[in-house]
Amino acid sequence: FCLESHFQLLYTLGCDCYEEHSSSSRAAGMNGNGPSKFVDPLEDPLPGVGTYEDFNTIDWVREKTKDRDRHREITNKSKLSTVALLHSISDAFSGWLLMLLVGLMSGALAGGIDIAAHWLTDMKEGVCLIGFWFNHEHCCWTSNETTFKERDQCPQWQSWAELITGTSEGPFAYIMNYLMYIFWALLFAFLAVTLVRAFAPYACGSGIPEIKTILSGFIIRGYLGKWTLIIKTITLVLAVSSGLSLGKEGPLVHVACCCANILCHLFTKYRKNEAKRREVLSAAAAVGVSVAFGAPIGGVLFSLEEVSYYFPLKTLWRSFFAALVAAFTLRSINPFGNSRLVLFYVEFHAPWHMLELAPFILLGIFGGLWGALFIRANIAWCRRRKTTRLGHYPVMEVLVVTALTAVVAYPNSYTRMSGAELISELFNDCSLLDSSQLCGYKPVSVLADRPAGEGLYTALWQLALALVFKIMVTVITFGMKVPSGLFIPSMAVGAIAGRLLGVGMEQLAYYHHDWFLFKGWCSPGADCITPGLYAMVGAAACLGGVTRMTVSLVVIMFELTGGLEYIVPLMAATMTSKWVADAFGREGIYEAHIRLNGYPFLEPKEEFEHSSLTVDVMRPRRSDPALAVLTQEGMTVEEVEALVESTRYSGFPVVVSQESQRLVGFVFRRDLLISIDNARKRQEGVVGASQVVFTEHAPAHAADAPPPLRLRGILDLSPFTVTDHTPMDITVDIFRKLGLRQCLVTHNGRLLGIITKKDILKHMAQIANRDPDSILFN
Amino acid sequence: FCLESHFQLLYTLGCDCYEEHSSSSRAAGMNGNGPSKFVDPLEDPLPGVGTYEDFNTIDWVREKTKDRDRHREITNKSKLSTVALLHSISDAFSGWLLMLLVGLMSGALAGGIDIAAHWLTDMKEGVCLIGFWFNHEHCCWTSNETTFKERDQCPQWQSWAELITGTSEGPFAYIMNYLMYIFWALLFAFLAVTLVRAFAPYACGSGIPEIKTILSGFIIRGYLGKWTLIIKTITLVLAVSSGLSLGKEGPLVHVACCCANILCHLFTKYRKNEAKRREVLSAAAAVGVSVAFGAPIGGVLFSLEEVSYYFPLKTLWRSFFAALVAAFTLRSINPFGNSRLVLFYVEFHAPWHMLELAPFILLGIFGGLWGALFIRANIAWCRRRKTTRLGHYPVMEVLVVTALTAVVAYPNSYTRMSGAELISELFNDCSLLDSSQLCGYKPVSVLADRPAGEGLYTALWQLALALVFKIMVTVITFGMKVPSGLFIPSMAVGAIAGRLLGVGMEQLAYYHHDWFLFKGWCSPGADCITPGLYAMVGAAACLGGVTRMTVSLVVIMFELTGGLEYIVPLMAATMTSKWVADAFGREGIYEAHIRLNGYPFLEPKEEFEHSSLTVDVMRPRRSDPALAVLTQEGMTVEEVEALVESTRYSGFPVVVSQESQRLVGFVFRRDLLISIDNARKRQEGVVGASQVVFTEHAPAHAADAPPPLRLRGILDLSPFTVTDHTPMDITVDIFRKLGLRQCLVTHNGRLLGIITKKDILKHMAQIANRDPDSILFN
Repeated sequence: FCLESHFQLLYTLGCDCYEEHSSSSRAAGMNGNGPSKFVDPLEDPLPGVGTYEDFNTIDWVREKTKDRDRHREITNKSKLSTVALLHSISDAFSGWLLMLLVGLMSGALAGGIDIAAHWLTDMKEGVCLIGFWFNHEHCCWTSNETTFKERDQCPQWQSWAELITGTSEGPFAYIMNYLMYIFWALLFAFLAVTLVRAFAPYACGSGIPEIKTILSGFIIRGYLGKWTLIIKTITLVLAVSSGLSLGKEGPLVHVACCCANILCHLFTKYRKNEAKRREVLSAAAAVGVSVAFGAPIGGVLFSLEEVSYYFPLKTLWRSFFAALVAAFTLRSINPFGNSRLVLFYVEFHAPWHMLELAPFILLGIFGGLWGALFIRANIAWCRRRKTTRLGHYPVMEVLVVTALTAVVAYPNSYTRMSGAELISELFNDCSLLDSSQLCGYKPVSVLADRPAGEGLYTALWQLALALVFKIMVTVITFGMKVPSGLFIPSMAVGAIAGRLLGVGMEQLAYYHHDWFLFKGWCSPGADCITPGLYAMVGAAACLGGVTRMTVSLVVIMFELTGGLEYIVPLMAATMTSKWVADAFGREGIYEAHIRLNGYPFLEPKEEFEHSSLTVDVMRPRRSDPALAVLTQEGMTVEEVEALVESTRYSGFPVVVSQESQRLVGFVFRRDLLISIDNARKRQEGVVGASQVVFTEHAPAHAADAPPPLRLRGILDLSPFTVTDHTPMDITVDIFRKLGLRQCLVTHNGRLLGIITKKDILKHMAQIANRDPDSILFN
Repeated sequence: FCLESHFQLLYTLGCDCYEEHSSSSRAAGMNGNGPSKFVDPLEDPLPGVGTYEDFNTIDWVREKTKDRDRHREITNKSKLSTVALLHSISDAFSGWLLMLLVGLMSGALAGGIDIAAHWLTDMKEGVCLIGFWFNHEHCCWTSNETTFKERDQCPQWQSWAELITGTSEGPFAYIMNYLMYIFWALLFAFLAVTLVRAFAPYACGSGIPEIKTILSGFIIRGYLGKWTLIIKTITLVLAVSSGLSLGKEGPLVHVACCCANILCHLFTKYRKNEAKRREVLSAAAAVGVSVAFGAPIGGVLFSLEEVSYYFPLKTLWRSFFAALVAAFTLRSINPFGNSRLVLFYVEFHAPWHMLELAPFILLGIFGGLWGALFIRANIAWCRRRKTTRLGHYPVMEVLVVTALTAVVAYPNSYTRMSGAELISELFNDCSLLDSSQLCGYKPVSVLADRPAGEGLYTALWQLALALVFKIMVTVITFGMKVPSGLFIPSMAVGAIAGRLLGVGMEQLAYYHHDWFLFKGWCSPGADCITPGLYAMVGAAACLGGVTRMTVSLVVIMFELTGGLEYIVPLMAATMTSKWVADAFGREGIYEAHIRLNGYPFLEPKEEFEHSSLTVDVMRPRRSDPALAVLTQEGMTVEEVEALVESTRYSGFPVVVSQESQRLVGFVFRRDLLISIDNARKRQEGVVGASQVVFTEHAPAHAADAPPPLRLRGILDLSPFTVTDHTPMDITVDIFRKLGLRQCLVTHNGRLLGIITKKDILKHMAQIANRDPDSILFN
């Protein structure tokens, strides 16, 4: 949803031109060529040949072959000299080194973001007198007098009202603090949105939809660049601190991927190969989740389940390494001062009872409904932003939403605190000494289920209001032009719902412990219901409903609690939530945003259900003009250029002859144009009338004819083919598993047509009764 | 290594005939056809069409297409009636139900095996007077008098000497017990090997190499059948109890897969589809490891990393579910009486120091060397067993090895106890009250590093001897004709080495705590070295060296300890171990056994490094006769039969005409023969002179000619093709990712040849300077 400017450009041009090769960028691509002697395309590849345009899909097979060739060459050379052997060894270990660097850098950045966001969030409420750079907690640590007092009230920390008017009591001070809160929130939000708009438009949003698309082979230049990294890091801190209903988890994945992409430039192996780079990016996605939740294994599974497209076992192992390095870096930074990686680490002690599965499944249903509702509402809102005048005022939109959030949130302590703090409080189990309002039980002698007191009733009301508010405000927040993650708000919604249900169950069990349901389980004085566990289950259910994550979600939650015990409740809730949400629409929020933006993303999880054949999907259709093909010999440079200019295809099949239509190979438009241009400039005698020859041996030509232009070097001799009768489900499988961009279609050995990823996506959109033209790129 | 009888058969026949279709089994396949009316092959598939022979490779694409067709049909029907809708829903949930059943059954079996093995192991040393069915621990539980005494000495439990002679003291009693120990060991081993040989030859070995091969698409009928399950369960208990150096972890995976395969028969969806069944088997492999180590997440990753071939995300989620169900079933059976899933669950409390990474890496090197050595020695021994007279006396071999093991093992308490108990003792941390010999430190006042005492020195000597013994005996044990897992012996070797190093480090630190290395870390009185952790790291390193597992191994160990803390030492050791072992040969023990047995297994992890082209690998080679093809019309039934009989290929390409060689499709030998046979029997007028027609519309035929036999129904209209210029690495990739059995090769649109999985494997063997004829099956 950050590519809207590109969209408008596309719409203005009135074409789906990103599929094709624009001549301006081609010229730009050529500028890199210094003056050189005669270049035989068979010998050394020209600069630019084998690379891709922006907003295009890579050919995985071609990239992997390139890498294997490179590797083979290094291995062969390594037997010749010691230097080459060392080079070969360093090449083999460069992947590990890169992972180490990615882990260190991402861990350090995540730590910095945590510390900065903590400080700025506290800044909204007051300031530390001994140094404005201390946050509330840190400020009171340094004070010796208050070691055993309540930490919240140390003299060094003053609220804004106290600082300005000298008193923190009374309605005037309250209003003063209220206004200062709104002021800071607006300031942070304004800075965030302005920075994003001015320096790095790609820095907004969560970034996960785009990263999924990039990992599937799409190219968006600059999306993972250094400016995006810098601006996203800064604005993420600002956005989180502004009190908006957003989290830092999604953007952290984006930040980690930016780190990985930038660090890739240090190693030729990864800089030059789009497929290899995507392996590193997959690992970086794992790193992002690892530092966001302190869950390295969960992060790896998240990358595997949710974002990655091509995930070989080598990447599994490396992601795990990088995720661990990042987690340990973050721990050594210790942003929360308790040697935990996240604010909401929990430890439960009480076991759960089989009967509790019923409320857990209820939470799952709630999570599924919330997920389905959220996705619909958010997509509708984003579509409205895209198509109406709303989209023209992004800064105003951010400011209005921030003001609204701040005004409504401040009076309610559960909305005033940050999302992570709220979740931490809701997950928390009440001990007898706990002073939190949520633990406002009536004092009884035993540490067990207790009757709710005044404090708890107030807390429940506030929580219910917070739930309604969070539900509504998250819908309009996610997708604004600031970095915004969805994990924390979703979890907060679920945690509130879960805690409410948990406390309800607890009171039910307390007052009705002789019901047959609670008998023998909730005897008076026994600790039988843990409201914190309900909050956690609710959080998992809501997150599952929105993202449709399954295993990775359960493992992340498992790593938060550390007990195998609680996997079953989590699993029951997540499964229910996924099933309920799937009943309303099978897409998760990320897939929905990918579709909204028209990215060429072929979902690897969904089976292709329709029974069409490849012949129904391929181009040309029956009414279309015949397929534009080149012949392996007999065409002149001028004819080739005319054909290329008259079409917009990004590649052309080469056949033996127009009559036989027997397929020889496939040539990319970009490679063809670069080679012809280069030959015309540098190869002597190549003129418009020269024959273009794709055969191995040039045919004899008359002595007075210009020398032929031999282009076998750029011809792909192993294009993928399927027959016209191949069922589309097999074709889609081939595209997915091999990562193809296009595939040729034959009938009884004759070339019949071509099918591209875009054709498949358009066909799928058509089947689902959607507008096939919503697929914008190829 | 259980298929040796088949090998001998193969060698006797002097052919690689499993590649082809034997006419006897074809006839058997036909017996199923009852009398029926005219059958149009286009309408209803004949029974047998689309199925596979034993020892053949399935075509994944065909299987998946079949399943999608079935699913599509159910979905379409579900819109018509409520019954069909219910059927559709039950079909969708049958996978989950199946997983539940697999989890329950495997968990229950694992619990039973644990209890029975525990009982029989104790039986070797003595008997319980109140009931012979109690094991030692259980026997002493029921005794009230000894609650606080040492558990080992309760009056109800009597050693054999005590029972027979009335005294447990003196050399005579010792010899008596010694002899009884050997007697029981020999009895158990004899029973195990006899049962295996008599009822289920497939029940021997660990089963993981065969399961890997089956999961990659190979068919071994009966390998996962009910007899194998029953016999493997019983003989596993006997083999473990006999005191041989083997574990139950690998065989548990086999047992879980048998359960899954048998339960698949309850559901049509899984019974009839080889690809779907393999999804269930992948999940079952996860279940096996889950119950073996009490590590559900580790089990899923083990299945993903080590054994599975095709592991879609849906399977990930379902395996996780099944693994959890199994773990909870096992826990509710509670075989160890401590509500832990394994005997060697550990909890460490002391942190580790960065400098300790050096000894951990040393352990990694040891593990890698052990792994490489073990694989070489074991494979050499197995090859000798296969090729010399040794293989003719499997019972004698087992008895000799058992006797040897028992005689040497009894005097040393660390070899006398079972592998799991040994590991549990070595992992254990010494508390002050610990009476074990390993904790025989000199008494000092503080609970910290202590000087070693007499007991510990004795223990160290015994451990060193045990290490040498285990290393040697495991090599000859693994691969015998009894169920034998490798995990426990490998871990035991590593744990001993680790503990020795750990104690060494501890004493070094105690006596030299002022060395600069230990300064500020091992001050006197501080607890700085945990020998138990060293044992665990050593165990991981040795297991990693043998199996080359990485992530799954670390996660399994993580689940054993429950602390993120210890992942880094584990990871360092596992990584080192893998690198060191890979330097001596890239195959793990399972791959080595697969190769030894000549299974058609295309390793998904290894890249194909050589730069050959498909044309170099395909058949026919230049000197061979031309490819046997059918034409789409014009051949008579007799001609087709003659062609089929004169060759042994399992399928034939169909071309437009012999001259053009333009490819139309591919037909399987089995399908062709069944269809012709059937038509001759049941379709009126089909005689030897009838034309075989593969085209859509039968050509006009003279009125007096016999009616044509139309076989378009069995023609695969979407055969996979690659061009002759396709680099082999791409072709291998296609085979792996799509799970192909064969692929046709074209040149400029003409059919040139065919390439099968076996051709690829032979080519790979040739490159690696191995005998290409070692690949036996296709």
